[in-house]
Amino acid sequence: MKILYHPDRADIHLSSVLYALSDPVRLLIASAIRKSDERTCGDIDVPVVKSTLSHHTRTLREAGVVNVRIQGTQRFLSLRTEDLEFRFPGLLTSILDAFETSDEKKKLMNPD
Amino acid sequence: MKILYHPDRADIHLSSVLYALSDPVRLLIASAIRKSDERTCGDIDVPVVKSTLSHHTRTLREAGVVNVRIQGTQRFLSLRTEDLEFRFPGLLTSILDAFETSDEKKKLMNPD
Repeated sequence: MKILYHPDRADIHLSSVLYALSDPVRLLIASAIRKSDERTCGDIDVPVVKSTLSHHTRTLREAGVVNVRIQGTQRFLSLRTEDLEFRFPGLLTSILDAFETSDEKKKLMNPD
Repeated sequence: MKILYHPDRADIHLSSVLYALSDPVRLLIASAIRKSDERTCGDIDVPVVKSTLSHHTRTLREAGVVNVRIQGTQRFLSLRTEDLEFRFPGLLTSILDAFETSDEKKKLMNPD
């Protein structure tokens, strides 16, 4: 089975987390999986093609923002809420709360 | 007098703010001016040369994170706390609080 790289909790860096979340589509992915324990990539409603979604998911995973679990042909995504909360208390919540009401989210969900 | 571009409050976007703060040196600049109303570039203790500092300051300014006021030969920097708080309540505080205790800050301040 393919092993995907995930940084250890201690190797999650603030600047990398902020970079990973500095893109509206990546914010949307993080926001979409926020409410559930795990979601498959196919379940996430984002206006990008599959290869772009994979690229963004990788950036989020390598920064320590999401965990990706492979099962069969599916990839299950979850936020590393506990690790991020341990490293940077309150940070993820304040970023995702800011995104919920942002123009950027509105524009992505209603591009017309 | 040279007029520097600063985005209007309504044009400050979450992803741009996160990108501007996704670099340890830029986090250090924001953190250094946090406690005072205004500081000159020369007053900010960052381990980079002047041209690099200018480049980083520009990124922060164009994203709406800092205000730069020119007076004579000096540039005065301040955080756009009120604008950012209006747009994204709590966000800047949680990012800068996370930076205060981060390995990245320690490494920048004590590179040996």
